[in-house]
Amino acid sequence: MGSESKSFDFFKEIGLASSNIGSYVNGQWKASGSTVTSVNPSNNQTIAEVTEATLQDYEEGLQACSEAAKTWMTIPAPKRGEIVRQIGEALRAKLDPLGRLVSLEMGKILAEGIGEVQEIIDMCDYAVGLSRQLNGSIIPSERPDHMMFEVWNPLGIVGVITAFNFPCAVLGWNACIALVCGNCVVWKGAPTTPLITIAVTKLVAEVLEKNNLPGAIFTSFCGGADIGQAIAKDTRIPLVSFTGSTKVGLMVQQTVNERFGKCLLELSGNNAIIVMDDADIKLAVRSILFAAVGTAGQRCTTCRRLFLHESIYTNVLDQLVGLYKQVKIGNPLEKGTLVGPLHTRTSVENFQKGISGGKILTGGSVLESEGNFVQPTIVEISPDAPVVKEELFGPVLYVMKFQTLEEAIALNNSVPQGLSSSIFTQRPGTIFKWIGPRGSDCGIVNANIPTNGAEIGGAFGGEKATGGGREAGSDSWKQYMRRSTCTINYGSELPLAQGINFG
Amino acid sequence: MGSESKSFDFFKEIGLASSNIGSYVNGQWKASGSTVTSVNPSNNQTIAEVTEATLQDYEEGLQACSEAAKTWMTIPAPKRGEIVRQIGEALRAKLDPLGRLVSLEMGKILAEGIGEVQEIIDMCDYAVGLSRQLNGSIIPSERPDHMMFEVWNPLGIVGVITAFNFPCAVLGWNACIALVCGNCVVWKGAPTTPLITIAVTKLVAEVLEKNNLPGAIFTSFCGGADIGQAIAKDTRIPLVSFTGSTKVGLMVQQTVNERFGKCLLELSGNNAIIVMDDADIKLAVRSILFAAVGTAGQRCTTCRRLFLHESIYTNVLDQLVGLYKQVKIGNPLEKGTLVGPLHTRTSVENFQKGISGGKILTGGSVLESEGNFVQPTIVEISPDAPVVKEELFGPVLYVMKFQTLEEAIALNNSVPQGLSSSIFTQRPGTIFKWIGPRGSDCGIVNANIPTNGAEIGGAFGGEKATGGGREAGSDSWKQYMRRSTCTINYGSELPLAQGINFG
Amino acid sequence: MGSESKSFDFFKEIGLASSNIGSYVNGQWKASGSTVTSVNPSNNQTIAEVTEATLQDYEEGLQACSEAAKTWMTIPAPKRGEIVRQIGEALRAKLDPLGRLVSLEMGKILAEGIGEVQEIIDMCDYAVGLSRQLNGSIIPSERPDHMMFEVWNPLGIVGVITAFNFPCAVLGWNACIALVCGNCVVWKGAPTTPLITIAVTKLVAEVLEKNNLPGAIFTSFCGGADIGQAIAKDTRIPLVSFTGSTKVGLMVQQTVNERFGKCLLELSGNNAIIVMDDADIKLAVRSILFAAVGTAGQRCTTCRRLFLHESIYTNVLDQLVGLYKQVKIGNPLEKGTLVGPLHTRTSVENFQKGISGGKILTGGSVLESEGNFVQPTIVEISPDAPVVKEELFGPVLYVMKFQTLEEAIALNNSVPQGLSSSIFTQRPGTIFKWIGPRGSDCGIVNANIPTNGAEIGGAFGGEKATGGGREAGSDSWKQYMRRSTCTINYGSELPLAQGINFG
Amino acid sequence: MGSESKSFDFFKEIGLASSNIGSYVNGQWKASGSTVTSVNPSNNQTIAEVTEATLQDYEEGLQACSEAAKTWMTIPAPKRGEIVRQIGEALRAKLDPLGRLVSLEMGKILAEGIGEVQEIIDMCDYAVGLSRQLNGSIIPSERPDHMMFEVWNPLGIVGVITAFNFPCAVLGWNACIALVCGNCVVWKGAPTTPLITIAVTKLVAEVLEKNNLPGAIFTSFCGGADIGQAIAKDTRIPLVSFTGSTKVGLMVQQTVNERFGKCLLELSGNNAIIVMDDADIKLAVRSILFAAVGTAGQRCTTCRRLFLHESIYTNVLDQLVGLYKQVKIGNPLEKGTLVGPLHTRTSVENFQKGISGGKILTGGSVLESEGNFVQPTIVEISPDAPVVKEELFGPVLYVMKFQTLEEAIALNNSVPQGLSSSIFTQRPGTIFKWIGPRGSDCGIVNANIPTNGAEIGGAFGGEKATGGGREAGSDSWKQYMRRSTCTINYGSELPLAQGINFG
Repeated sequence: MGSESKSFDFFKEIGLASSNIGSYVNGQWKASGSTVTSVNPSNNQTIAEVTEATLQDYEEGLQACSEAAKTWMTIPAPKRGEIVRQIGEALRAKLDPLGRLVSLEMGKILAEGIGEVQEIIDMCDYAVGLSRQLNGSIIPSERPDHMMFEVWNPLGIVGVITAFNFPCAVLGWNACIALVCGNCVVWKGAPTTPLITIAVTKLVAEVLEKNNLPGAIFTSFCGGADIGQAIAKDTRIPLVSFTGSTKVGLMVQQTVNERFGKCLLELSGNNAIIVMDDADIKLAVRSILFAAVGTAGQRCTTCRRLFLHESIYTNVLDQLVGLYKQVKIGNPLEKGTLVGPLHTRTSVENFQKGISGGKILTGGSVLESEGNFVQPTIVEISPDAPVVKEELFGPVLYVMKFQTLEEAIALNNSVPQGLSSSIFTQRPGTIFKWIGPRGSDCGIVNANIPTNGAEIGGAFGGEKATGGGREAGSDSWKQYMRRSTCTINYGSELPLAQGINFG
Repeated sequence: MGSESKSFDFFKEIGLASSNIGSYVNGQWKASGSTVTSVNPSNNQTIAEVTEATLQDYEEGLQACSEAAKTWMTIPAPKRGEIVRQIGEALRAKLDPLGRLVSLEMGKILAEGIGEVQEIIDMCDYAVGLSRQLNGSIIPSERPDHMMFEVWNPLGIVGVITAFNFPCAVLGWNACIALVCGNCVVWKGAPTTPLITIAVTKLVAEVLEKNNLPGAIFTSFCGGADIGQAIAKDTRIPLVSFTGSTKVGLMVQQTVNERFGKCLLELSGNNAIIVMDDADIKLAVRSILFAAVGTAGQRCTTCRRLFLHESIYTNVLDQLVGLYKQVKIGNPLEKGTLVGPLHTRTSVENFQKGISGGKILTGGSVLESEGNFVQPTIVEISPDAPVVKEELFGPVLYVMKFQTLEEAIALNNSVPQGLSSSIFTQRPGTIFKWIGPRGSDCGIVNANIPTNGAEIGGAFGGEKATGGGREAGSDSWKQYMRRSTCTINYGSELPLAQGINFG
Repeated sequence: MGSESKSFDFFKEIGLASSNIGSYVNGQWKASGSTVTSVNPSNNQTIAEVTEATLQDYEEGLQACSEAAKTWMTIPAPKRGEIVRQIGEALRAKLDPLGRLVSLEMGKILAEGIGEVQEIIDMCDYAVGLSRQLNGSIIPSERPDHMMFEVWNPLGIVGVITAFNFPCAVLGWNACIALVCGNCVVWKGAPTTPLITIAVTKLVAEVLEKNNLPGAIFTSFCGGADIGQAIAKDTRIPLVSFTGSTKVGLMVQQTVNERFGKCLLELSGNNAIIVMDDADIKLAVRSILFAAVGTAGQRCTTCRRLFLHESIYTNVLDQLVGLYKQVKIGNPLEKGTLVGPLHTRTSVENFQKGISGGKILTGGSVLESEGNFVQPTIVEISPDAPVVKEELFGPVLYVMKFQTLEEAIALNNSVPQGLSSSIFTQRPGTIFKWIGPRGSDCGIVNANIPTNGAEIGGAFGGEKATGGGREAGSDSWKQYMRRSTCTINYGSELPLAQGINFG
Repeated sequence: MGSESKSFDFFKEIGLASSNIGSYVNGQWKASGSTVTSVNPSNNQTIAEVTEATLQDYEEGLQACSEAAKTWMTIPAPKRGEIVRQIGEALRAKLDPLGRLVSLEMGKILAEGIGEVQEIIDMCDYAVGLSRQLNGSIIPSERPDHMMFEVWNPLGIVGVITAFNFPCAVLGWNACIALVCGNCVVWKGAPTTPLITIAVTKLVAEVLEKNNLPGAIFTSFCGGADIGQAIAKDTRIPLVSFTGSTKVGLMVQQTVNERFGKCLLELSGNNAIIVMDDADIKLAVRSILFAAVGTAGQRCTTCRRLFLHESIYTNVLDQLVGLYKQVKIGNPLEKGTLVGPLHTRTSVENFQKGISGGKILTGGSVLESEGNFVQPTIVEISPDAPVVKEELFGPVLYVMKFQTLEEAIALNNSVPQGLSSSIFTQRPGTIFKWIGPRGSDCGIVNANIPTNGAEIGGAFGGEKATGGGREAGSDSWKQYMRRSTCTINYGSELPLAQGINFG
């Protein structure tokens, strides 16, 4: 676990140094706040220093951003798409060092770090096409010489508050769409991943500058809760996209709603996999492993609950426990590692709390090391145990037994969260019931694949305590625009709807 | 103003009597609450008595409704459409007496009362077609042997809380769509229009019974704030559609969000008309009259603010004042009446408060009568006056002068509310700027027609303090369903998205 | 088989007599052609007489229709929807007598006759909703101060030439959509089902008259090939929807194309069912029976080819042969009858030709009777036999054996026609391959249901020699309209696309 | 006009030499046909030699292509999008030399040559996004336990026959969409622009090779009518996209239809501009100049007919004649040139025929030179003159006078062709009538911009003799796929549509 000196070599490729300014305001790098350190979760040593933004920096940034919004929203959408295309190209050129940085600072394995950056690139490619398809509608009017339009216009500014576990992909989901939709972006990254925030912002900033556009179109802050609250309260920001816990998300939502703003929330998940009696067991086991252990269980779509049909219960568990024991834990940048560290010491504490209340079938220990390493853990537990109802960010899998499909669906739906869910079965009837009106109540409802690993073409997000937002593909872009229903009378008469006569 | 005895003749056609049970629970008419009276706003005399629902009635209703939801959601959508078609036919058969009842109990003129019922009928016709078009999507997956679906499923139960000013059309907007989408409906009508709630419910109930369906699919309550709060708090109701003031709406929203439910809000409007120098003045004047005076100014889309270009200021005002003086005020059921009473005594008091702070150009008086009649009023006022920022439910029009389009748009956008807006101009450039990114910030953006009188084919609703909900046409139906992004692996391999390799 | 006298009782309910005028021209019933008889296929006796239209009648009709088109296309689509709604109500009121007439004159059993009329009613209900959803698009322009619209406008007149086997439903598919889209309809029904043409036209005509609309909006002819050719050649008819054989369809297409018109073709089908080794055999057998024997094999979607996996070949055939022997053949109006007569004597001759070249497993005989009755027949045959490549309109099922899914799909795709197809299997992988890029090449691709019995919400039609047209639901309506891509410059500059500078 | 030696320098950048092999077959450059020369229209001297394909080369190519189609169609669409993205990048890297080649070989000015290549690049960017949006639908079924899908599958192979005037952009419109839709492309370029065909094919081929994909996915031929006929007749090619004259297009269509294939036709245009009395004259005049003179009048969207309101007739003509006289004619590669040569000597002859029958207001001469230069010409003529009804490929503008909008629209619609049209006016009512049901009958209907210069986001194509095809944006992609309506029964019952009972 000592390859850090080599890791730092790539810093200059992506504009980082040992000391960095943490906010991009009105097209300039400036920050007048306190200096914080970015810490490597593999050894809890400092990676680099970052000066955070103050509320004064924030205000300066927002004033410039408000001004830039007036320009950006009137640039034709396909021209905005061209800018996003260039951002994609800039990211593609730095795929490897950025992926490395994600792995280093967040702690996920390198393949996933690179995959996360690739996801923004995919989003850019997608958004370019979308920039010619942000279509409104022409709806038949019931009145002669009238046209009825549904027009989509930019909101102005979109605030994006992201979490540590996807320190740049979630920005990508939001920013690519927000930008082609004609909005400026105000980004506050997670306090523990400031280097990623800075590195990504630098690439975006360069593209804006090269095109002689105001840098304030993309305004970015490293900072803490005060910046987050400022965004939530700011009437200049009609939409706040927040990724994080249900608890904080609810508070953000109330603050934003009180000022008549809108939220796009991606909150907690508590995702389950159901394995039916007729499942392809090999496929199921491999999927569960990735779903529960990947990213050290720190994806919002990580599988946290496993429901096994009684007939295959022992078989599946035996195979899983066997695999769990072989999983290589260690430096996420090293080849062969499957499980990196948890992101912080607090996560390790939560892990320890979360494995109580049931029977530990494998794992359960914190590894002795400088870093935040824990063992992937399977806990046999009752569905009524309080820990089962909560999201635990770590590689802990609660396993339960069931007898019928109806019972399994009820278990799946019995938690407050509603993000992702998956079933393993070979029966069409079971698949279609699972995705139907009385099936899973989640936003993501899979069959024969893990709970995680969503494609960008679909809409990503969940129901209930997960917040109801949808990001990436499908018609998610509509959340980043405001809709006007426009009726235009081009004749000289004044017929009224519903055939009313007045006067 | 003495035609009431005649009015009561139609009661038996629509199942009303002098004393009525005010809730339809589990397919039965029963109510154990206190008895209230429905009052005629034209003379403040009792129309009939109604027994309201208690929280116990509510609970009984909701238990039955939850049970009925399991059935209703699995009936194929086109079959649900057939039920809504029959509801439309039932309403069509009673168009005249229902329209009369709306006029009598709410106070709007008969033409508008009938127009309101016609709007539900239109919604039924529309929803029947929609029942075969609640389309999900099949999205290309990036993985071989995978299908990606976006599926729309029913929510289960939709709560609908309506206001007095559209005592049945708003129910129609919501219920027609909610029902074809596979949801049961729980309706709480306005406390001051219980007879309309009962009469409409009876027609729906008959259709359900004729088709051997559980009556609990449509559960309906006359009642007060306690019932409203019960709906807001009820975790069995994933969506609450609320129409009313911004103040109450915000409280409903917070209550619903705390339990992870969703809201569809139609709150206050403070709608403006802009008349440009090149406008067709005749068209503008006629439109303003209808927009400001129609329904005695009690539509959410009523025009409350008028911005006149300085060059046509006097001309338009002169014509308007002339017309205002000729408008016939009186019994809304009588032919020729254009302005009926305000709905309550409180409305009259609000009217009196709202006309202070400016110069009254015409009107301004409360009429001496048993009813709640006031004069349509035009007030010349500063845009900064506090009353201009608030929604006043009455025939009061604030008039202001401007010089440039940009100034007029800024004025239009300067209030918290964002429902409806309209411009009068003959220049294409002005029209397209008005509906474009830097134009009106409202949900409804018209040209050369009034602010009111929306067609059902479009999406109805507004931005900012108006709450952001959309009802009736376009893709409004999506709010009444939950979306699942489903990825189905039908092969035997497990490729991961973004090309990630794991293990 | 002697209930005819009773059948005639219902004639007056639907405006028929023993002698009838066969064309509705310019809002009047008039026909100057020869008198033909409508013959009952159950006994080859005359039902009633009909005077056909001449080319002079045609010309008079088309002149009036062209004039009416100018009016009809400018009536707002939702108002046109209201007319179609009334047509639906008129049909609903006559469902039973019209269904009886279809059964009597075409020869299908009463349940199917009524089902066919119900299908037009469903289409009317659907089209009403559609009349508010014939949406164009507003597409983001790459140029500032430009709007890009995609607008859908009516074509003017749509010619509809229908076949005997669905003597009114096919008119319904076309006319309901064509009318809401703003087109007048010119209908030529099948020469052998003139009474149905007249009865349906009468109902439509009454609705038009009641609404004070020109009767010429719906222009209808009983007649022969000369009228069909006149429609094909007529430059006033931009779209000709033709249902019939591939041979005649190709001639119509060439004639229409030469004058730059468009065709919507629904031509021959040669539809197959595949039964896999894992199929629900009971479901498959019941489906095959309906698919092959229903409507005496005279649906375009009738199953004509059956591919059985070798492992279930004998089992399925045994069950089928058993059922075939029990099927009741006889008067289609009599309760219990499942197979009525073939429509004409010529059909009987074709049946006799079509059963040669293989081994008859059951059936094979023409029944001795006054009518055109034949036995439902199963023929074991080689896929290379010439008769297998052609559409035979009768209850003849060719059965073949296969070993692999790929082989079965290749067999399914090995004929010129591409209308309908179905597979019976319980494996998701098989279902999704079947509907995927290397699966069935047909327009209708079912699983675990018969080849026939399409729902109106989907698009009906087929590929290859079936002609490529799509009717009823989905976006079929676009074929009945013309699309304009409109770019509107509302500024004063002239930027060019692709950034070109000129001059 | 002597910069050719310099022009040839860029050949090696794009893989061209003085002698070139003219077909790319099964991933190899081979051609066994006769050798032809590519001629510079500016001086009629040879640019380079090309060996054309024979029918034997064609057959070899198609066999490989058919085989490659089986692979390509099963690669997930987003992965196909990635290939098209790389093609776009390859073109972007060669924008300048390719643009030069287009200018040299076709004869259009350099800005337009580069603009044409940019258009393919734009199409690639657009198609990448589209590759995740080739969405099918999930349509509500009226039957319980049934799913109804509308699935879009690849056709297999798309034949693309392009014309000289857009020697690569038209390929781009078709190929980008066809490829992401999962089809292999068989391209036959115009016989007189073989170098462009070869240069573009080389770039595509390199991308395929780099990705280890079969080169036969893109099969390309330089050749004459025999190759075109082979494509038209080839049953392995379900769709033939043809750009060219109406006369040849009709023949292609009949050949393709006879074998049950489909055509996408982009045929002749005869496009008009209407200038109303209230037009912005300056904008109109500049637009007419570009529309009529750009590309030396050899665009399919070139304005060929000009209708001037009598009140501005003289004013507009005077300005136009003045501008026409200043237009610089000459070597299209030279800076400042606005009008290059006609493409061939035959075009010059057609020009001479086309200017007879009216009064020449300016121009009318063939320039004395080695090249095919003619003067931009305005002819005052009667709308009844036969030449006005035909497409003339050259810079000839027929001008006519009118009095009313209705008259101008009737004139616009009075020719067989229906491609593009434009009106200049400042009245909303006129604009909306122009794009409405009784307005222009063309596929492209503009206001206040020229007839040419379409954006790729919209659907490009025309009605009537223009053939009815639509290329580039909107839902044009559907033409490159086949649609299946799929009903899947996942239950164990067999309910029939329209509620029919059978047996």
